[in-house]
Order: sequence, then structure tokens, then C-alpha cells
Amino acid sequence: MADIEKRIARKIDKAILQFGMLKENDHVLIGLSGGKDSLVLAYHLARKAASGRYPVPFTAEAVHVRTDFTTYPVGDDFLEIVRGWGLKVTVIDVSVKKRLKKGYKLNCWWCSTQRRLELVKYAEKSGAAKIALGHHLDDILETFLMNMSTKGEMSAMLPVMSYDKYPQTIIRPLAWIHEEEIEVFVKNQGLESFTCTCPWDTRSPRRTARKALEALSAGRPGVKDSMFRALANPIDRYLPVIVSERL
Amino acid sequence: MADIEKRIARKIDKAILQFGMLKENDHVLIGLSGGKDSLVLAYHLARKAASGRYPVPFTAEAVHVRTDFTTYPVGDDFLEIVRGWGLKVTVIDVSVKKRLKKGYKLNCWWCSTQRRLELVKYAEKSGAAKIALGHHLDDILETFLMNMSTKGEMSAMLPVMSYDKYPQTIIRPLAWIHEEEIEVFVKNQGLESFTCTCPWDTRSPRRTARKALEALSAGRPGVKDSMFRALANPIDRYLPVIVSERL
Repeated sequence: MADIEKRIARKIDKAILQFGMLKENDHVLIGLSGGKDSLVLAYHLARKAASGRYPVPFTAEAVHVRTDFTTYPVGDDFLEIVRGWGLKVTVIDVSVKKRLKKGYKLNCWWCSTQRRLELVKYAEKSGAAKIALGHHLDDILETFLMNMSTKGEMSAMLPVMSYDKYPQTIIRPLAWIHEEEIEVFVKNQGLESFTCTCPWDTRSPRRTARKALEALSAGRPGVKDSMFRALANPIDRYLPVIVSERL
Repeated sequence: MADIEKRIARKIDKAILQFGMLKENDHVLIGLSGGKDSLVLAYHLARKAASGRYPVPFTAEAVHVRTDFTTYPVGDDFLEIVRGWGLKVTVIDVSVKKRLKKGYKLNCWWCSTQRRLELVKYAEKSGAAKIALGHHLDDILETFLMNMSTKGEMSAMLPVMSYDKYPQTIIRPLAWIHEEEIEVFVKNQGLESFTCTCPWDTRSPRRTARKALEALSAGRPGVKDSMFRALANPIDRYLPVIVSERL
């Protein structure tokens, strides 16, 4: 097994155990966008689910929510690839454009909400307690920097997130994986040409956060891990306390 | 009064009230390094202390701890300038080189600890309950990013910090002031050529954090303020929780 594959497999184990992502015999629904992150997630969860001796045994299947524009420019070849890894893959067609109320413009928030809703509905039907998404360490840290910069709050994309209104729990097993590691793995596996990209994926607010993260971590591989540990380690006595809002 | 002067004065008031920096009739000792930040602090606290109608009346004086190398390249002209603003300025000479134990190398941490110790001793003698330092918003945010990146913790330079072993409290009235604002003010007042710089002040770990902060805030003046508000606003339910350290 290639080093990068082992490395990613180990980091997923770390995230699963450290954040308590799985209970014994959980059924996990993998959100398969077709992007490289979700492919890496599917590959590794397929292996772990199929292994007879995983510390927390679980079962898994994948769902690809196909919208009016997400398959550009690569098509659906990745579906067969994922099936080849032993996962059942279900495709759900949704027109996010048609669902949009009159007068509203399509945006990333709307599309992702619609896709998430389909995953929750399918999880309900298939008895999946967990919905696994392919967000990685860079996504989590970028979101943290974006929330600080624009919302004035310290908050992140959570490795484990419960909904108030749905019984399912979102898990992000790639929480410890650096984006560079995903890129190396996808290249090693020859999967590059099968992954798809959303044509609307310009993500300019995120790009700013990404540049900042690069400035902090370039040439210092430990920085991202340290930042992620920091998210779980707020030192209350070294954070400012506002005592009066008189002004 | 120039706009920038009013703006800085207002932001200092905000910090003093919001973080409860002063009690009525506090005596405040201003740490005067001779750098631009401490000059701006001294200028504004001198005016507020002298004003008959400041909401929290206080008195102030300044101390400059002169070390074996800090006065390069500008000399001590700033002392007379600060005296001209109506503040008593005391100079304390300290050889940080001589104090260093054999076999240790001089570094920023050692020098700043020695200078801080002198301020605390002087505060004790002069009955100052508060020691005011010239750290500004950029310093606070850079320290936060450095601590995340290297210590794995969310912690910042505090606007108000009590010591465990000394009765004095450190206050940072420039907490809301952007470094750019300090630069504009110093230039407007023609103070540039009187401020001194520590010749050892290369601060490379800080330079990385500074670049990241620039990447986040360039062209978006509200970002630094938002980030500072975030420090006082951790959203517990959106920060990861480690449930097991089994790995």
C-alpha cells in the first residue's frame, strides 16, 4: 500500500475515534459529490466498512445528488469507479434551479442546502444514523478564518455535528487530512480525470481565507495540525472578556 | 483636531470602558519603549488624564526602561517630547546583557521580561494599580494566529491581564487601534523621526502571522475589528470536542 494511502487511512481512524464519529454497527451514508474529496472519503470508508476487523464495525453506502449543473465537465464516470470499490451508489436527480423561489438567485448556499436535504431524506429511508461528508482540514480551518473575519465569532465546521431538527449526525472523517494529501492520493490512484468540479465553484470569500492559511503554513507542515488542535483548545483565561457595552 | 486623532481617542475610550480598564482615580504607569505605539499611547493618555471631565478620572506617568541596546538609532529625544505633553517621565537603566545567566543567549523574551519586571517594581513604588502598554489590534491578532499555529491553543494578548504574583494589572488601551492608524497619526504629528526601533526587532515568527493577517484583511477594513470581536465570542457548540485520546 502506498505511504500516502496508509497515512490517510490512519488519519481517518484518528478522527473517527478521537471525535467519536461512529457507534458499533452504524450505517453510514457517504455524500458523493464527485469531487476529489468525496472520492477519497468513499475509497477509504469502503475499505474500512469491508474490513472484518475494524475497531468500530460499520456499513456504508453512497448517494450522489445530481443537480442541473454539477456534472460539468467530467460526467458520471466516477459512479462506476466507486461501485468498483464495493459501495452501493444511488443517484438522486434534483433541479436546484427549479426549486428556487421566484426572484431569488441561485447560490452556493441554496444548492448545498438542497443537496443536504436530499441526503437527510435518503438517510432516513435507508436507516443511516451518520452522513459522512468529504470536508478536510483546510476546509475546516478556512471556515474558521472566514467566520472570524466576517461573522465576528470563533466557530468552525465541526467534525461531528448533530442537527436540531433531524436525527442524523454529520461526520467529517477527513478532518485531519490536508488538502495536499488528498491531491497526492488522487494523483497516485489515477483518479484525477474522473473527478468533477462545480462550474460555479469560484468561492471567492474562501479564497481569501485560503491565502491566509497558506501564508501561515507554507513550509511548516505542523501548522495546520496545530491550528486544528487549537480549535478544540480555547484557553478561556487568555481570551478577552467584554465587561461593558456602554459605548 | 485631526480626524485620525479623534478616531484614536474614541477607540481608546471604547477599549477602556468595554474592558473595564480603569477604576476611578487609578494611577496609571505608561510603559514607554520609545517605539511609535508607546508614543501614541502616551500622547492620548496624557490628554485624557489632564482632562477635567474624563468619565473615569485617572492620573498617569511614564517610565522608559533603557537597556544596553534599545536606543539605536534615534536616541532619547522622545523623552522630552513626552514630557512636553505634560507627563512625568522616569528613565530606568538596565543592562539586560549583564543580567543574562552564563551560557544563555539574549532574546526578545528575556529582554521583555526584564523590562516588564522594572515596570512592575516602579509601579509598586509609585502606587500605580495599572500598567499601560502600547500593543495594538494587529499585535493582538498576530499573537492569536501565532498561538494557534505553534502552541495549538486559542489564546490572545489580553486587553486586561492580571498577574498571579503581582497586584498590578496590565492594560492595553490601544486594543482597538489598527497599526495603520498609528502610522498615520505619528506621521501627522511629525513624530516619525523621534521614535526608536529595537535593532534586534526582526520578529520572524510574527512576520508570518502578519502576512496572514494582511491576506485576510487587505482591502476589507472591517475584518480586523470582526476578528477582535471574535476573540471575545467563542461559540462553544461550533468548536470541535475531542471525546477520546485513544490514538
